[in-house]
Amino acid sequence: MTDKAFACCDKAIGLFDSGLGGLTVLRALKSTLPHENFIYFGDTARVPYGGKSRDTVLRYSMENARFLLDKDIKLLIVACNTATAYALGELQKAMHIPVIGVIEAGADAAVQASKSKKIAILGTRGTITSSVYQKEILKRDPSIQVEAISCPLFVPLVEERFTNHPAARLIVQEYLSPLQNKGVDTILLGCTHYPLLKELIQQEAGEEIVIVDSAVTCAQLAATTLHRLRLVASERLGDCCYHVSDDPAWFKPLAEEFLGEPVIHVEKTHLGGLCRLH
Amino acid sequence: MTDKAFACCDKAIGLFDSGLGGLTVLRALKSTLPHENFIYFGDTARVPYGGKSRDTVLRYSMENARFLLDKDIKLLIVACNTATAYALGELQKAMHIPVIGVIEAGADAAVQASKSKKIAILGTRGTITSSVYQKEILKRDPSIQVEAISCPLFVPLVEERFTNHPAARLIVQEYLSPLQNKGVDTILLGCTHYPLLKELIQQEAGEEIVIVDSAVTCAQLAATTLHRLRLVASERLGDCCYHVSDDPAWFKPLAEEFLGEPVIHVEKTHLGGLCRLH
Repeated sequence: MTDKAFACCDKAIGLFDSGLGGLTVLRALKSTLPHENFIYFGDTARVPYGGKSRDTVLRYSMENARFLLDKDIKLLIVACNTATAYALGELQKAMHIPVIGVIEAGADAAVQASKSKKIAILGTRGTITSSVYQKEILKRDPSIQVEAISCPLFVPLVEERFTNHPAARLIVQEYLSPLQNKGVDTILLGCTHYPLLKELIQQEAGEEIVIVDSAVTCAQLAATTLHRLRLVASERLGDCCYHVSDDPAWFKPLAEEFLGEPVIHVEKTHLGGLCRLH
Repeated sequence: MTDKAFACCDKAIGLFDSGLGGLTVLRALKSTLPHENFIYFGDTARVPYGGKSRDTVLRYSMENARFLLDKDIKLLIVACNTATAYALGELQKAMHIPVIGVIEAGADAAVQASKSKKIAILGTRGTITSSVYQKEILKRDPSIQVEAISCPLFVPLVEERFTNHPAARLIVQEYLSPLQNKGVDTILLGCTHYPLLKELIQQEAGEEIVIVDSAVTCAQLAATTLHRLRLVASERLGDCCYHVSDDPAWFKPLAEEFLGEPVIHVEKTHLGGLCRLH
């Protein structure tokens, strides 16, 4: 390995999400690639992305990517389904490093898991409206029947830690109700927040249903990509820096809950212009 | 009345909110001041404000106010409780026109309504953390006992039109549970979204509880302010322009539901900087 390649291996992997959800991807990445350094950016000042338009999500994604690119990363992971749905193609065109999202690997895993060839996707309004999961699945197997359901209340339920509340069960039942008698055997969690509702979804959908978590499949894709490009770090245990666009004090305890480990320091970073009245 | 004063009367009233909630204020304003022109700005690209920090909400409020000020308005209404809580003082200092918020008038009405001198305030995390309602109530009557409850899931329930769903009732019960046996006789709705849950809150709190809607009290304060400054328009039926920072197509049908009348045209306006990768 040349010195240059060696130095490249030491560079961090950058990932961004609208807020906390991408931490489920980070958790899976840390477990799959323990020697890597990570830089996480959560756009907590503009969260959530799920109900916002393509143009707005694209603009935010470009700003987030620019911020991470300036930190000299070797790989960018769009750890947000809505941002992947609307911005992955544009980011891949605009950047000189590899960019991967949370959707393709999830679609792969769901297609492989389904025996009945009937798959349900749960996602934010943005992800579902973009039809990106539907297209990715049909590209792999046009005979598959896809049920796409937007679940806009799942993100606030997770962020407000209502995942064990009876109201969360009623909301899960409501969103899953179109699946009755449809023969679906695989549910794809098309939003990085949803793994925190996985148990409830499993209970309501039935224990026989396979639930595919796009956070885990994305981490596997990241590992494959790094191996292919010979960019894997291997020297020592990796580190992680956290940046958010709103108050770090709010982010820190929730991040620790998502990650299951201490978060030492979170930095605040403004994105977008600042306008004054004076 | 001079020509100049006459021209001033013709100017519009500007109001902003993080998204849709301020439309309950606009609805009350249109009913109280039918001859006025209004310019509404909904910051739908950055909604919600309720869980965000003081610094971020202040920055967004300044940008929104700047946008409306450039439209030559005669009065600015901060039609969002979180923005009023964090930014009203700064806006009043920075602007050369009168600025009113949704909090003072609501506090007045609640203090007047309560016989037991025990008042509950329901608001977003931001509004409750700021303690602004608590302070405004105690300033008027230090003997009043205030129960302040943050209800972060109410805004998503309203925006997702789940107000009639059984899950909404469970969430209302959860948030009201600290009020049991406290002797509260008045509940102040400290968020402009909450009037859409008023019926459910009334049912769960009990029919004998007085519910104060800060949207209505704010409209009354706006009318008093305009009369005092001799700025009331009286010539013809007023008009309203709508501006949002995200997709107008999403906003329009929901706005019509909030307002109970057709919304002809909604304009999209970018606030904040635009960053490119190239």
